[in-house]
Amino acid sequence: MSDFNLGFVIFPGITQLDFTGPFEVLSRLGTPPSLSVPSKFPDVKTHVVAKTLQPVSSDRGLAFLPTDTFETCPALDLLCVPGGSGLMEALADSELVDFVGRQGRQATYVTSVCIGAFLLGAAGLLKGRRATTHWAYVDLLPLVGAIHEEGRIVRDGNVVTSGGVTAGIDFAFSVVAEVAGPEVAQAIQLGIEYDPSPPFDAGHPDKASAAATSLMVQRNESSHTAIRKALEKRAAPGVP
Amino acid sequence: MSDFNLGFVIFPGITQLDFTGPFEVLSRLGTPPSLSVPSKFPDVKTHVVAKTLQPVSSDRGLAFLPTDTFETCPALDLLCVPGGSGLMEALADSELVDFVGRQGRQATYVTSVCIGAFLLGAAGLLKGRRATTHWAYVDLLPLVGAIHEEGRIVRDGNVVTSGGVTAGIDFAFSVVAEVAGPEVAQAIQLGIEYDPSPPFDAGHPDKASAAATSLMVQRNESSHTAIRKALEKRAAPGVP
Repeated sequence: MSDFNLGFVIFPGITQLDFTGPFEVLSRLGTPPSLSVPSKFPDVKTHVVAKTLQPVSSDRGLAFLPTDTFETCPALDLLCVPGGSGLMEALADSELVDFVGRQGRQATYVTSVCIGAFLLGAAGLLKGRRATTHWAYVDLLPLVGAIHEEGRIVRDGNVVTSGGVTAGIDFAFSVVAEVAGPEVAQAIQLGIEYDPSPPFDAGHPDKASAAATSLMVQRNESSHTAIRKALEKRAAPGVP
Repeated sequence: MSDFNLGFVIFPGITQLDFTGPFEVLSRLGTPPSLSVPSKFPDVKTHVVAKTLQPVSSDRGLAFLPTDTFETCPALDLLCVPGGSGLMEALADSELVDFVGRQGRQATYVTSVCIGAFLLGAAGLLKGRRATTHWAYVDLLPLVGAIHEEGRIVRDGNVVTSGGVTAGIDFAFSVVAEVAGPEVAQAIQLGIEYDPSPPFDAGHPDKASAAATSLMVQRNESSHTAIRKALEKRAAPGVP
């Protein structure tokens, strides 16, 4: 089987777990074939792609070194775009948005985690598509022409969008199951002991207390407004 | 409240999600107090500590930039040691093991994820303690004087060890709840939409198929043997 090129776009202010969660799961597609079922394991090459090869820091100060720039990155089989508080600047970066669009138009899988969905959207990849994003931002999906669908992972054709941050781990397993089969997904799950047992059941507004939800909505208010304005401006470029 | 110094030891060949999972959760302890309950939010400083400030690559090729060296890192309130396929080399690195011991003897919380437990053990921090590690390596815990206890997260005094890779996320939430209160833990859980929904229920040998477990045991065989030999040698330094 030929190479399977897996690419993550990173930018200053990413939420690093949006990226590192799926990275851990998807990069294991390339586990040496001594494991099992060799014919199902594609030869995975993992690309961490940014504007330059300089270090890129997450919104909590964790710095990564990219492996590829927008120019040097090969055609990707799977494109994954994370979110983060740096989204506003990323939306304004035409080289980044162009890269997402260019890769997204040819990739087998076009994916996002959290508010990375709006970068797919800005690149025109969500028009008429069912999609999701972080729960606090789902109301903004129509601004990029997407139709919000409830769900931690939403698939429409070759576009797979996922909810906030940790949803990227679940999304990655679903992709592994499709690319390499459920046995491989389950072997990876066992390998990383993904048997989650959160000490609280408060990971979605359906379950969290009204107080916690209200705090989070309040905390996200300014970025929600900023993203809304940026997307509205993009939708109607003539309007100041 | 004074600074809360949170430190992650990284080394070549770490399993990056052992580190980045708890990093995402624990670094949010430092969320600006505008969120809520300001008095409970310690002023968190996050340290990514390595032998030098040169980039450190994970076992799947993801490169991080450390923020501190073993010499420049301040006294930590919470020490977290991840695992990874580079464990053997890390066990042989006396500067690293000394750093873990020095910090571990004074930290409020001494923690590990996955086979990072053996670095705590090599530094003498698990003697007589109940502890856990990745399911495929729990039988080796007595070699560092620890008593294996079943559980995804095991706490004995100020030592908190957790199971394989993704167990670090659950462990981090339990620490946040203790340091900052359950409301803060739940707000962070909602913020990162940690409402896990794995597509399969195969994350532990209790649940996985015998075939998947056997594959994983087989795959870990050589590293299991290597770690066993290194720990046996350490336990009886006179024996070649």
